[in-house]
This record gives sequence, structure tokens and C-alpha cells, in this order.
Amino acid sequence: MPDRTLNIGLLGLGTVGASVVRVLRRNRDEIDRRVGCRLELRAAAVRDLTKPRDADLSGIELTDNPQELAERPELDIIIELLGGVELPRACIERALAAGKHVITANKALLAEHGNALFEDARHRGLMIAFEAAVAGGIPIIKVLREGCAANRIHSIRGIVNGTSNYILSRLSHTDDDFACALEAAQAQGFAEADPTLDLDGTDAAHKLALLAAIAFGSPVEFSGIYREGITDLTPEDMRFAAELGYRIKHLAIAKRREDGVELRVHPTLIAEQQLLASVEDQHNAVLVQADALGDSLYYGPGAGGEPTASAVLADLIDVARASAVAPEHRVPPLAFRPDHLTALPLLPIEETRAAYYLKLTVEDRVGALADITRLFAEYELSIDSMLQKGGHPETEAEPMIVVIVTHLTTERNLMRAREAIGALPQVCGPVSVLRIEPI
Amino acid sequence: MPDRTLNIGLLGLGTVGASVVRVLRRNRDEIDRRVGCRLELRAAAVRDLTKPRDADLSGIELTDNPQELAERPELDIIIELLGGVELPRACIERALAAGKHVITANKALLAEHGNALFEDARHRGLMIAFEAAVAGGIPIIKVLREGCAANRIHSIRGIVNGTSNYILSRLSHTDDDFACALEAAQAQGFAEADPTLDLDGTDAAHKLALLAAIAFGSPVEFSGIYREGITDLTPEDMRFAAELGYRIKHLAIAKRREDGVELRVHPTLIAEQQLLASVEDQHNAVLVQADALGDSLYYGPGAGGEPTASAVLADLIDVARASAVAPEHRVPPLAFRPDHLTALPLLPIEETRAAYYLKLTVEDRVGALADITRLFAEYELSIDSMLQKGGHPETEAEPMIVVIVTHLTTERNLMRAREAIGALPQVCGPVSVLRIEPI
Repeated sequence: MPDRTLNIGLLGLGTVGASVVRVLRRNRDEIDRRVGCRLELRAAAVRDLTKPRDADLSGIELTDNPQELAERPELDIIIELLGGVELPRACIERALAAGKHVITANKALLAEHGNALFEDARHRGLMIAFEAAVAGGIPIIKVLREGCAANRIHSIRGIVNGTSNYILSRLSHTDDDFACALEAAQAQGFAEADPTLDLDGTDAAHKLALLAAIAFGSPVEFSGIYREGITDLTPEDMRFAAELGYRIKHLAIAKRREDGVELRVHPTLIAEQQLLASVEDQHNAVLVQADALGDSLYYGPGAGGEPTASAVLADLIDVARASAVAPEHRVPPLAFRPDHLTALPLLPIEETRAAYYLKLTVEDRVGALADITRLFAEYELSIDSMLQKGGHPETEAEPMIVVIVTHLTTERNLMRAREAIGALPQVCGPVSVLRIEPI
Repeated sequence: MPDRTLNIGLLGLGTVGASVVRVLRRNRDEIDRRVGCRLELRAAAVRDLTKPRDADLSGIELTDNPQELAERPELDIIIELLGGVELPRACIERALAAGKHVITANKALLAEHGNALFEDARHRGLMIAFEAAVAGGIPIIKVLREGCAANRIHSIRGIVNGTSNYILSRLSHTDDDFACALEAAQAQGFAEADPTLDLDGTDAAHKLALLAAIAFGSPVEFSGIYREGITDLTPEDMRFAAELGYRIKHLAIAKRREDGVELRVHPTLIAEQQLLASVEDQHNAVLVQADALGDSLYYGPGAGGEPTASAVLADLIDVARASAVAPEHRVPPLAFRPDHLTALPLLPIEETRAAYYLKLTVEDRVGALADITRLFAEYELSIDSMLQKGGHPETEAEPMIVVIVTHLTTERNLMRAREAIGALPQVCGPVSVLRIEPI
């Protein structure tokens, strides 16, 4: 057969965009040997036409008008790597209206507007591919959509934000406090100048919304995801957790229950012997629990130009191959056929169950602990283990720190108990609480 | 669109076959929601028609003639789960000749006869899918064929035999010797009555042959793979390795070099902080190093009825979807287009490079070690670390054990040095050698 040519337009030539150009050129032979058609990168849209780029752009027309490029008649596929939400959204809408397949790495856009975009694409018989939107180069979208297609997926637990994980690793393994760890992350290029969305769990929640939709066959649900960041964590927490046999990770968790789904992002204690607990630095990993497959884990670089380009180009090869296929035979973007999605109720955080790590500062006087353990009994909170640090019983000179690990309970019960404990006169300051994920 | 129905014939109702029936029934809804056609299991071939099976077989016709079933005109897809080589081969040849797509979990068959079968299928415009042939439920074939499609893959290192890994875990973490560990594996169902092919590396080499063909775009090459089993390993080796900061795993290794590929299966020391070193018991994991993606790791159950059925059914869903597609747009079985495969020269084991662990028994007399270290210098083998155990320098009563870890060298050089060291009068018995894989 004579090879067909597919013409591609690229929106954005930042770190990932330039890497796409570079890898596509470097591995041209490998890619041509794999895919049954020629892929030609015709044009790219950039904000600044004069800025030097880390890629050979010969033969690629440059423009500073992405919306115009998105609907050019000679292009078959648009790759969107602009960043932001509104401009990419407008570009993708135009590309779809002009009959082009779309590949994007934009998790914020898809988490917030994915349902409408997927529906628009479906009506037009077009594809939207987004492997690069979650966990960088790790092919986790493909694994869930296709590799686990025969399974009922019970849960997903992921370390999906490299910035957070890098900082937590520093807090665990160096003498850094949070500010120093963040500075190191920025110096290494693992944190942006404004790292807010990474540290407060928003970025992880964007990714979780996409993973959960694929795993459970439900529409993308972002706004209701419970989010807690890592900025309150201290090296002391990491140390206490380690003494108790745990590591603290910023986990994105999706769980299917009989009555609905839990979707939450928060700092989480994980038993140290779990593989997830050993995922260090900027790396990502996703643990999938499924009924037939059992537990499987996918680990790799969660960000970076070339790893993300690897995912973008895997999508490009898939889209190129599938563009010759009638829409009804393609893998749907959320794995399930669009008319077969089910809206699972999103459960409030109060109804989730976990074990808990509580850290209290307690005035060190006779009977101080007895009141606390009595309250635990009252709330039917059973204690798994306990650490007591500092304090001078002889002199009552300074308060002690008490760390208590509970067995499983509901968030609602734990929060009531926490309030009661916090109200005890011998408990100084807030009771800090972290969830422990049983795996 | 009205859903099309695809009719399926199943050859074999052992552990995996029965699990395929069970999972297909249990997750019927999930699967129907994902795939755009109906999948009907019409008939199954078994050796013994009267044997009870761990699955609801209602509506499935049973026969004891697999070859006849493989070519029945009403079937579209044949799933081969028979075990053995010659009968499955005959069945698959018949199925292809009769125009049916084939799904198989048979690594031995594909490693030994895959090239001919793939070629036969290609000529007829048919698919052979084999996700379940490697690493059980882990979708590693899909990851390599599609997820890494834009990459040049540098290396694959896998723990792909659950039996071996289970035994090595027992040797490390219990007081078992090899015989006890094997017995425990058999009692737990992680080793067969005759475990020879698992323990001598043949099974891992079958899987490696398939992984390497996909990763490097070369024909399947099994016969030239270097194989070494685990039966000579002792708890003492595990202990010494641990003291030196390593774990011993039975690794299948494929490496692309400028001058060819290395394909080998042998016990291997891995630094303990590597994720691969933490893969315990019957679990499997594959570490892939690729130019754009970097390092990624895929972990999960390497065997068992339902995990393997998960892979078989993922193939079934893929094949069902792709059966509506013209052959030139499908993902080729070895990822690369068949006329674009390149035969990379397979390098002899002597030309591979590794660091090495040597264990010697040495008569404990003055100057005994000096001769040995002199020989190391002579062969330009630089010593990374050294352990000395036992021995009574005062009495020269009993020999000591010396463990030496070298820096990187070639296998050829190491083997020459080993011969020279073994010939020293103070060295008693054989010099045992293990390779250390730098990751």
C-alpha cells in the first residue's frame, strides 16, 4: 500500500512542544516502522516568533495565531500544548469544528470542560487523546482504557504530582524544612515559580478526575473532589510516620463503593513495605486494584519534556492508526461508550473510611493521657499504636507531643473525636490529622 | 448502530480458561459498555468432558476435539489456552487457515514458532494477540507496542517468572534452603509439580524473546538466549548480597547496543534501593528504559487464573474492535510493520558487560588473599567491595569464604580471571559467580 500522509499542527513550542518536535525527528525511523502512514509536522503556533527553541524547526511553518492554525484545512490532527484553559479551549473547539482530531496534555482543561469537549468530538466522529495529561510519560490512560478493559476497577491510588512528591522526599531524607525543600524543587526545575496548584492538590485532582472517569465509566467530575495540600507537613511528621512504619505521600485516591465513589487528594500515610511508599523524588506511580487483574502498579517520570512528548506521540500514533477506522470501532476517550456512562454519586469526605494519624501537644501532667484515651474509647476509636515525645514528667516543664494511630473509622467519627480532644484543657493548640491508606 | 456479535471458541478450560469464562460472565456489563459489539462464547474444547470446571458453562457447547473447533465456520475468534506446543500450534494453524483471529497465552509456542505464525496471520489479514503470554495480567505487551511507540527502547529488565521470584523471596526472608523454598512454592500453587522450565530460565527466556522482538522491532529470537537458572543459589548468597547492599533476582535482560542486542536470563544482583529489588514473592515487574520516556516500571501479578484472564480478555476486546479495521491500520503483533523488522545481531554472552559478585572458599593461610588480589590486578578487574567470612588465622583450622564485588568488566575477562583464580592452590572448590546489573 502507498503510505498515506497525515498533516499535523502543533500549538505551543514550550518544553513539551519542543520535545515533541525533537523526538519526532530523532525517532522518525522507529515511528515510521511502527505506524502505517507518514506523519508530517507542518506548522506550529507560538506566542513569540523570535524566541529560540530547543528543536530543529526546519520545514515547520511558524505562526503566532493558534486559533487560525487550529482550523487550517490542510491539517488532519492538532496537538494542543499551550497551557492555560481558555485559549486552548477555544483552539480545540475550532479544531473539532473544522474536522480535526485533537491531542492534548491539558489536564486542567479536560478536568473542567472535558465532558463537553468529548461530546462535541463524538458528534463529529473525531478523537480527543490525552495520554500526556496524567502522569507524564507513564501510559496509564492506555493501561486503564485498554489494558484493564475486562476488569471492574475497585480503586486507583496515585502519586501524580511530581512537585509534591519531590518536596515530601526532601522532607523525609534531608534536613530541609518545607521552605527549603520548595526552593530546592524550584532550583531543580521540579516546581514552578508559582507552585500553588501543585502544592494544594488542584493539579492532582485534575488528573484524578480523568483517571476516575476512565476507571469507573462515569463523566468527568472535578469540582466535588476533596482536596488537601501538603504545605502544613513538617519534617517532624515525616519522622514520626517513619518511626511508626509509614511514609507520607500526597495521594490521589479514587474508590468505587456500592453506594458511590470516593474521590480525594490529601497527604496520606502508607505502610513502608508498599511499593508506592518507595516512589521518591519527582517520580509518579499509580496503583490500580481491579477485580480480575488484582493489584498492578505503573511507575515512571510524571513530568519533563521528553517523557511527556513520549505520551503525546504515542497518542499521535494511535490517532493516526485509528483515523482510518469508523468512529464506532475506536476506543472511546473515557473507555466506555458515551451512551453507556453512568453517573456514580460522589460521596462526601465525611463518609470515607481510613485509619488516622493524630498529633497532639499535651501538657505533661498526671492523668493528661487518661482523659484522651477515655475520649478515644467514647468515640469507639481503637488505638493501633502511640508515640510520646518530649515532656518532663518530673518537672512538668514543657508539653509533650503525642502521636496516635487509630484503626479504621469514618471521617465523620474521627472529626467529632478530634473536636472533643481539642477541647480538653491539657491539649494545647490544634490536633493535626493525617489519613492512613490501607492498601 | 446495531451491535454486531462476534462468536468465540475457547481451547482449554484449565485454570486460565475457566477464569476467562468466569470474568467474561461477571463483567459482562462493564465489557459491553466498553466494546462496541457483543462477544459470545459459543464453544470450548477440553480434554476431559466430564471433569468439573470452576465456571458456569451454560450456553457453551463442549467438545473434546480442539482442532475441529478451531476451524468451525461460525466462529470469528479462537482463544488458545491449551498448554504444550504441538497441539496448540496445529490448532492455531487451522484457525488461521479458516480465517479466524487468534488470542493465545502460549509463550513457548510463540517464542519457538512465532515468526512463522505471525507471517501466516499477516498474509491472511488476521491478528494474533498474546498479552497474556508475558507477565500474566500486566499489560506489558500493550505498553511496549503502543505506549512506548515513539521511543527507541534501550533496555528491558524483567522479573517475569513468578515461581523463581517466590523461591528467591523465601531464600531471602525465611530460613528455607532451596528444597524447602521449592516445596513451599508448590504448596502455595506458585510452582508446578515439574518446575524445571521455571527454575532453569527457559520460561523467562520465552517471555524475553517476545519482549525483545517488540521492543527492538526484530524477529522473535529464542534459541540464542543465554540462560542460567537459580537452583545453585543458597540462603548464604542472599545474605552476603544483602550485606553488600543488593538483592538477588532472576532477571530477564534485553539490551540494545550499537553492535547488536544482548538477551540473557540469569540470577542478578540489583542495588537494594531499586524498585525492581523490592518486587517480592510471586509478583512480576518489568523495567523499561527508553530514550524519550526514560525509566518506567510495570508491576503486577505474573500468573494466576484471573490476572491472566484479564490479559486474554483485554486482547479479546482489542481484537473485537480492530477486526472491523483494514489490516494495514492495525497495530502489528510485534509493533513494527512486518516488512520493517530488522534482524539485530544477537551478541554472545562473552561480550556483555556487568559488575560481578565472586564467592571463593580460601584456605586461611598467610598471603592467601594477596595472590588473589594480584590476579584481579592482572586482569584489570577493579574491586568495589569485599566480604571475608569465617577462617581462624591463628589456627588455620578451616577455610574462609571471601566475597568480592568488582566494577564493570566484560564477561570474557571475568571468566578468564575466574579460571586463573580457581587454579590457585589456596582456592578450594569452584569460584561461584553472579552478575550485578547496573540500573
